[in-house]
Amino acid sequence: MAAPVALIQGASRGLGLQFCKHILKHRTTAVVIATCRNPEHAAELRDLSDRHPGNRLTVLRLDVNREEDVRGVADRVRESFGRLDLVVNSSAVLHPSGKGETSLRDVTAQGVISTLTTNTVGPLVVAKYLAPLLQKGGGGFGQQPAEKSKRHSGVIVNITAKVGSIGDNGLGGWYSYRMSKAALNMATRNLSIELGRSRPKVVCVSLHPGTVDTDLSRPYHRNVPKDKLFAAELSVSRLMSIVDSLNMERTGRAFNWDGTELPW
Amino acid sequence: MAAPVALIQGASRGLGLQFCKHILKHRTTAVVIATCRNPEHAAELRDLSDRHPGNRLTVLRLDVNREEDVRGVADRVRESFGRLDLVVNSSAVLHPSGKGETSLRDVTAQGVISTLTTNTVGPLVVAKYLAPLLQKGGGGFGQQPAEKSKRHSGVIVNITAKVGSIGDNGLGGWYSYRMSKAALNMATRNLSIELGRSRPKVVCVSLHPGTVDTDLSRPYHRNVPKDKLFAAELSVSRLMSIVDSLNMERTGRAFNWDGTELPW
Repeated sequence: MAAPVALIQGASRGLGLQFCKHILKHRTTAVVIATCRNPEHAAELRDLSDRHPGNRLTVLRLDVNREEDVRGVADRVRESFGRLDLVVNSSAVLHPSGKGETSLRDVTAQGVISTLTTNTVGPLVVAKYLAPLLQKGGGGFGQQPAEKSKRHSGVIVNITAKVGSIGDNGLGGWYSYRMSKAALNMATRNLSIELGRSRPKVVCVSLHPGTVDTDLSRPYHRNVPKDKLFAAELSVSRLMSIVDSLNMERTGRAFNWDGTELPW
Repeated sequence: MAAPVALIQGASRGLGLQFCKHILKHRTTAVVIATCRNPEHAAELRDLSDRHPGNRLTVLRLDVNREEDVRGVADRVRESFGRLDLVVNSSAVLHPSGKGETSLRDVTAQGVISTLTTNTVGPLVVAKYLAPLLQKGGGGFGQQPAEKSKRHSGVIVNITAKVGSIGDNGLGGWYSYRMSKAALNMATRNLSIELGRSRPKVVCVSLHPGTVDTDLSRPYHRNVPKDKLFAAELSVSRLMSIVDSLNMERTGRAFNWDGTELPW
C-alpha cells in the first residue's frame, strides 16, 4: 500500500502543529504536508522538518483567505503526491480583536465577516480544491469495512468547537466565533453528503478538541477548571483515536474529543 | 396602551411586503415601519403607503450591509416612535448568482462571503442597533403571561429556512444559503440569551416560512409539490399566528410555519 498522505492546514502552532507531530511519531509510514500562512516565521515547523529527513514533512504556504494559495497547494500536492488520505482544517481565529464579543455592543459587521471568512469560508474552499485529491487517496486513515462499496478513500476533519453547537449554547456571547463554527458544521454536513455520493467516497466530520491550551484560548484559561484544560498533545491524541474509528457510517457528524456526538 | 410599532426589514417584496400588509390589515392599532434598499423602486410599498394614510406606514431606506444605514434607521425610529415592539429580519439572497450551488464546483469564496454578509451579518447588525428600542417596547406582539417578571417588551423574528437546519440536511447543495441560515440560527440563539437576561426582556426566534412563492424560490418551483408551495399571504398569516404565541418560554428556538420546532 502507498504511504498515507496527510495535509494539516494551519500547522504553525497549536492543534495543527500537534497533528503534524502526532502523525509523524505514531504513523511511521505516513507523510505529512503542513500548511501555514508564514512558513518563514514557523520556527517549530522548521525544527520538526529538520528532525524528520527523507521528505516525511513538507511545509507549504497557505492563507485560506487567498483562493490562489489554495489552488497552488492543490497543484503542488497533485504533482508531488498525486493524492491525499487526510485533510485537517485547523486554522481559526476567535475574533480579529483577539477577544470574543461579550455582548451585542462588541459586535461589528467587519469583525463577524472577518471571522466567518477565516473560520468558515477558508476550510470550505480548502475542501473544494483538495476533494479531488482525497478521492484519489488510498484510505490510509479511518476504519475500512470488509465490504468494498462501503470503503472511503479519504477523510476531511474540520476542527469545530462545542461553542459552535447551537443546541448546546446556554451562555451566549462570542457571536462571531460561535456563528463561524455553526456555519462550518453545516459545511461539514454538506461536504459529507456530496462526497458520500461520489465514488470513491470521502468521510467528512467536525471534531471538537476540548478546551486546549493554545494561543486562541489562553486569554480565557482562568475560567476553565484545571481538569478541563488539555495540553494540545492529549487533545490531538484523542482526536486521532476518533479519526481511526471513522468510516462512511460515521460521516457527517460532529464529535467531542471523548468520542461522544455533539448536538448541532 | 401605546400603539404597537413593528419594523419589517426587507419589505419591498416577498415575505417582508406581506408582513407589512398583514399587520396593517389585522392589527389595526399598530403602525409599521417598512425598510428596503431602494424605496424609490418599491412601487408596491408606495401603493400600500398611499392606501394607509395617517402615518400608519413609514418607509425607510436600509441596506443591511451598510452599518451607517442601520444606525440611521435606529436614530429615525427613536426620534419618531421612541420604541419598537416587533422587528422582522426578512431580507435574504440565495446566492449572488441567483442560483444555489449544486456542488462544490460552484462554490466560490466571494459567493459564500457575500451571502453570509447579507443573510447573517445584516440581521445581526440590525438586531444590535434595534435591541435598545425593543427594550423600550410595550410588548404589543406575542403573549404576555400574568406574572410581570416573565413579560417581554419586544420580539425579534429572524426569517430562517428549513435548509438552514444542519440536522435536517439530507440533500446537501446550496452551500452558501444553508451556511448563512445555520449561522443566523446561532445568532438567534445568542440574541435570545443576551436579551433574555436583560430587563426588559426581548423574545428572539427563527421562523421558517415554508416554500413560498417569492423571487428567491421561483427558479426552483418545478421541484416543489403544489400543496407545499405557499402564497406569501398564507405563509405570513401562519407565521404571525406563531408570533402571537411567543413568550419568554418559547424564545431562542426555530419554528416551522406549522408551529412545530425545527432541529438545529
